[in-house]
Amino acid sequence: MSLNVSHMPDRAGVLRAAVKVAAILPPTPLLPLDVDGRTIWCKAECLQPVGAFKIRGAWHRLTELTQDQRSKGVVGVSSGNHAQGVGWAARRLGIAATIVMPTDAPRVKLDATRALGADIMLYDRPGGENRDQVAAELILETGATLVHAFADPWVIEGQGSAGIEIAAQMEAMEGAGPDLIVCPCGGGGLSAGLALACPEATIVPVEPVGWDTVNRSLAAGELVPVGADAPPTPCDSLQPPVTHALNLELLQGRIPYVATVTAAEVRAAQRLAFAKLRLVVEPGGAAALAAVLAGKVELQPRTVVVLSGGNTDPAAFAQVISTVD
Amino acid sequence: MSLNVSHMPDRAGVLRAAVKVAAILPPTPLLPLDVDGRTIWCKAECLQPVGAFKIRGAWHRLTELTQDQRSKGVVGVSSGNHAQGVGWAARRLGIAATIVMPTDAPRVKLDATRALGADIMLYDRPGGENRDQVAAELILETGATLVHAFADPWVIEGQGSAGIEIAAQMEAMEGAGPDLIVCPCGGGGLSAGLALACPEATIVPVEPVGWDTVNRSLAAGELVPVGADAPPTPCDSLQPPVTHALNLELLQGRIPYVATVTAAEVRAAQRLAFAKLRLVVEPGGAAALAAVLAGKVELQPRTVVVLSGGNTDPAAFAQVISTVD
Repeated sequence: MSLNVSHMPDRAGVLRAAVKVAAILPPTPLLPLDVDGRTIWCKAECLQPVGAFKIRGAWHRLTELTQDQRSKGVVGVSSGNHAQGVGWAARRLGIAATIVMPTDAPRVKLDATRALGADIMLYDRPGGENRDQVAAELILETGATLVHAFADPWVIEGQGSAGIEIAAQMEAMEGAGPDLIVCPCGGGGLSAGLALACPEATIVPVEPVGWDTVNRSLAAGELVPVGADAPPTPCDSLQPPVTHALNLELLQGRIPYVATVTAAEVRAAQRLAFAKLRLVVEPGGAAALAAVLAGKVELQPRTVVVLSGGNTDPAAFAQVISTVD
Repeated sequence: MSLNVSHMPDRAGVLRAAVKVAAILPPTPLLPLDVDGRTIWCKAECLQPVGAFKIRGAWHRLTELTQDQRSKGVVGVSSGNHAQGVGWAARRLGIAATIVMPTDAPRVKLDATRALGADIMLYDRPGGENRDQVAAELILETGATLVHAFADPWVIEGQGSAGIEIAAQMEAMEGAGPDLIVCPCGGGGLSAGLALACPEATIVPVEPVGWDTVNRSLAAGELVPVGADAPPTPCDSLQPPVTHALNLELLQGRIPYVATVTAAEVRAAQRLAFAKLRLVVEPGGAAALAAVLAGKVELQPRTVVVLSGGNTDPAAFAQVISTVD
């Protein structure tokens, strides 16, 4: 597998990112949740200013651009959360940002990205248009820097800063770091970052059923894209067409297994987070909790579940909490 | 006005409560929120384990009971949040708890209080039954200790611990304590606690329109109960029939004014907290934010709004977020 990256992400980079993130963002809370008489800890990344952990990687990446790179702007590709992370960091640093977003992204994510001042370039995801190609053409024209949603070394290190926070919080409360971190997984940026951040912890990524490109790629030892027959999923933030060699390289041999969750399991997790944590968690953000509730992950004494995002249309959320599957 | 209390709550008591609370509960986050281009800070007390700040006062009160008092149990009177606070603290300390709750309390609050192991004694609030009398008879029978929801010296000190946290968080982020704290107000326990905790800050309590017993009592200089013609309000946690001499004594001369909010203003605040903070806030918990959004409170440079609770029935919340007034 050939990797064409400027540097391999590493734990030193994660620690550097954690310091930069801590300077502008207070730690998100690690909230206890009783699951069948056992306490697990929920890392509420949905409480970040943009409603998702993506602000971490974007901030680490954009702050390390050169002046020349900054002047030419950045391009992101995202269904919405990475978009807002890049938009937020770009606005704060005075960098022009263009985000390539699918036409079927949730309205709240399109609106929020626009509100941050980013330009949006729509592509036809349901129609099969290739988002990477749209971004590549734009970059060729402008000389802008691509900020990949999950396969960028700095983005991975930045997402890992969540793991540094988790370790510190767990240490303070329970006297030792986490044994297990269960996290939602799209392309594998957060999973890879957490793996670097917490070398002693087991990391279990969770993907939507049928959209498990990381799972299949790890099993095959090579990139396996999502099949054309992948079922519909409410997890709009966990739908990359395929993971990346960089993520695979970092996760290979480090992940005991990947769990997959159904739409109904995700809804059940959203309802529990509403009722017991008073948190708004979007479908993709609830995937890890869904896997734990469905008994698909073997709990360990100090288990952490990442609630990775909370950007969801009110009508969709209203329907989830007012129905029982 | 004659006060029949064991001791006057004071700042030393608030500080003592804050130390005890900090030993078992991590601080709830102080989240930035953009309101018309200005940043206000939202104290997310809905993220407490019982979904409301009431856990603070209950913990401070119950931990200071003597062994003899503990053995005879405690009695609380509450529509649900104080109930859960007392239930949570009692379970943790191995104390028997009975809560006098109205028949029309939200189902989630009744269920959650039962789940904490407390006995529930229902009274007919819509029918005008006197809850204090129900509690008094129970106490006469059992020798249990009353834990008043807002007029107990320890409960007031305990609620004030939120102010100590706010001051520390604001100091860390902005280099100085809060100028203004806007908080939902039922009987005035939280308002009085915050007034003691943050002597430099302006405190503005917010009550539902027509249920403004604290407002009217402060204006009259004596206890003025809620009128029989008070309109319906969704703020079930802010409906005490009348405030108490102790709260009045602590608030008199300390509060510049009290704001009142309508049901529609409360719903707008719940929707904003959903969309921008990804928090589930119950109607009463959103009252202070509602007043700020409605322009009923003059903002100061470092303004804090307390989001005091998040226990709400899913069907009710679904309706709030899926409609626009």
